[in-house]
Amino acid sequence: MVIGVGLIGASIGSALTQQGWSVFLRDAKSSHARVAETLGAGSTATPAATDVDLVVVAVPPRALATVVRDALETYPNAAVTDVGSVKAEVLGTVWGHRDLHRYVGSHPMAGTQHSGPTAARPDLFADRTWVITPHRRSDRAAVDAVTDLALACGARTVTMDVDDHDAAVARVSHLPHLMSVLTAGHLTTIGEQDLALAGPGLRDVTRIAGSDPGLWEQILTANSAAVLAELRQVSDELDQLIGAIEQGAATQSDGHRDTVALRSRLARGVAGTRRIPGKHGARAVAYRQVVIEIPDAPGALATLFADVGRAGVNVEDVAIDHDQNRQVGYLALSVEPEAAAGLVELMTGLGWNVQP
Amino acid sequence: MVIGVGLIGASIGSALTQQGWSVFLRDAKSSHARVAETLGAGSTATPAATDVDLVVVAVPPRALATVVRDALETYPNAAVTDVGSVKAEVLGTVWGHRDLHRYVGSHPMAGTQHSGPTAARPDLFADRTWVITPHRRSDRAAVDAVTDLALACGARTVTMDVDDHDAAVARVSHLPHLMSVLTAGHLTTIGEQDLALAGPGLRDVTRIAGSDPGLWEQILTANSAAVLAELRQVSDELDQLIGAIEQGAATQSDGHRDTVALRSRLARGVAGTRRIPGKHGARAVAYRQVVIEIPDAPGALATLFADVGRAGVNVEDVAIDHDQNRQVGYLALSVEPEAAAGLVELMTGLGWNVQP
Repeated sequence: MVIGVGLIGASIGSALTQQGWSVFLRDAKSSHARVAETLGAGSTATPAATDVDLVVVAVPPRALATVVRDALETYPNAAVTDVGSVKAEVLGTVWGHRDLHRYVGSHPMAGTQHSGPTAARPDLFADRTWVITPHRRSDRAAVDAVTDLALACGARTVTMDVDDHDAAVARVSHLPHLMSVLTAGHLTTIGEQDLALAGPGLRDVTRIAGSDPGLWEQILTANSAAVLAELRQVSDELDQLIGAIEQGAATQSDGHRDTVALRSRLARGVAGTRRIPGKHGARAVAYRQVVIEIPDAPGALATLFADVGRAGVNVEDVAIDHDQNRQVGYLALSVEPEAAAGLVELMTGLGWNVQP
Repeated sequence: MVIGVGLIGASIGSALTQQGWSVFLRDAKSSHARVAETLGAGSTATPAATDVDLVVVAVPPRALATVVRDALETYPNAAVTDVGSVKAEVLGTVWGHRDLHRYVGSHPMAGTQHSGPTAARPDLFADRTWVITPHRRSDRAAVDAVTDLALACGARTVTMDVDDHDAAVARVSHLPHLMSVLTAGHLTTIGEQDLALAGPGLRDVTRIAGSDPGLWEQILTANSAAVLAELRQVSDELDQLIGAIEQGAATQSDGHRDTVALRSRLARGVAGTRRIPGKHGARAVAYRQVVIEIPDAPGALATLFADVGRAGVNVEDVAIDHDQNRQVGYLALSVEPEAAAGLVELMTGLGWNVQP
């Protein structure tokens, strides 16, 4: 039984159906359940409650705890899990329940760029991490049922303590989101003339602040303890940064400025960027960027990439930077350092304007 | 006379030489000046000091004020400008000089992805904004000379007050840089296990924190007053955000939570992202993203873009997201909303795995 058939719920239904599981779908919006059924995620029929052996709760964060408790009541023989991105709050709410042992939370780390059942795909979880968060009252049978679920969806399981999980997502997801929100929100206080001087760095920092406030309000409220702990640390770090800049700004008696603390804060930022794992879980690699001017016209990129293809170089990342004022763009290709020189030579030879 | 021939100084020399100006080059590293000379940025010969009618100071931020004052002393008939990204500090240092009227600061808003004279290009400033910051003691002749310089380099001039300029760059560049540094720096306090859960949003927010700490130390110190004013405001906004989350976390007497303040903080972030001008100075446009799965192999992107090219669709932005665990990548193409459906249909028809 999958309750809540948005992107995640419907994708789980599809994956399990493909594996031959018998899946039933429920959603507060019955049209969502019917769409998911049409797309092969399961059946909207109502099974005998006692026959249900696993319930997956995939509703919005605010509704999770209530729906998990209802599921424990309604399906007396089922293991119950939820797939919310915050785990402690739901567990806390269910804690007093007599059938607590049948509940084990989990969190599939899967992309959610799109939403709703029409965006569902059975391979959404293939080779992704699916965090399982057992607690000291959970039975082995329930943990096994949730593990089987994750494996049937093609995911790799990682077991974490509920609080460790919530602290981790507070640190690598919720806090960065709020820093982006603060930076973007501050732009509402400044004039058009100032904004006209904005460059691509500002767009990078503020990009995720454009996400749905309704969803984030629920996530942040559910994880408020861990998020507040991080925010208070960052508040201290901001105070230290302010102190470091004040110190650097003050001229010493010998006419020099003491910028050691500021330098160290900036170096700490560089060190932090290097700790983020690169693609495929590997450590970040320093790629070389090759920047090529592109006319802002249909087809130009196709020709460009066809030419890049001739070099037989594996392009690790691409970015287009449109010049704010000139009617041209630049394509930055990140490639292995040893491949850069050959690529520059080839592209220049083919008549492209490659930045030196 | 151009003093300091890194990317900016050498590009100015090249642009002016192309326009038929007689350009002399100086650099603390004489090899830099010779490289720039070889690349056509001007001559390393020493002109008669009284013949020099314009001096452009393009040295690192920390050295600007000293070099500007030396230039006023050495070249008695020259207008003197600097191209630093912070303006008030240099002006303050030069303020007591008897020839202050010959100094007018300026700031070409040009890309600096690469550095050094070998990266120079005569069209670096073509159609870019070049901010000119006259002061109440500057003569008309000096302002005209700097304006002619900017126009000869192909730039568009904007006149701003020194303090307005510094406040603007503090808001749209220096503050966002520090928010990225704070976010990245905080990652140095957390464990590997937590970082393994990181997604692309964290990489976006922290990207610019990887920039050269030595340069940023100088920029931030030179603009410390404006930067501190913004940081203190953001510190207040962070306190308000903490308060909003605390308020949302507390259960009211009626069992409900008051998340209105948090919701409003998040909505303010969304509003801020919408104020950033899009490419070519236009207002931001909401593009549709079409996400296509790509094998992680040489040539795949070339084939993909060749196929995209058949659709005759103008690709506004591209991003590659490598799945952390699966050996595949996703290419997100941003296109005009009305072009998206046709592109999806074409690519699907050609056998690409397009995310729904």
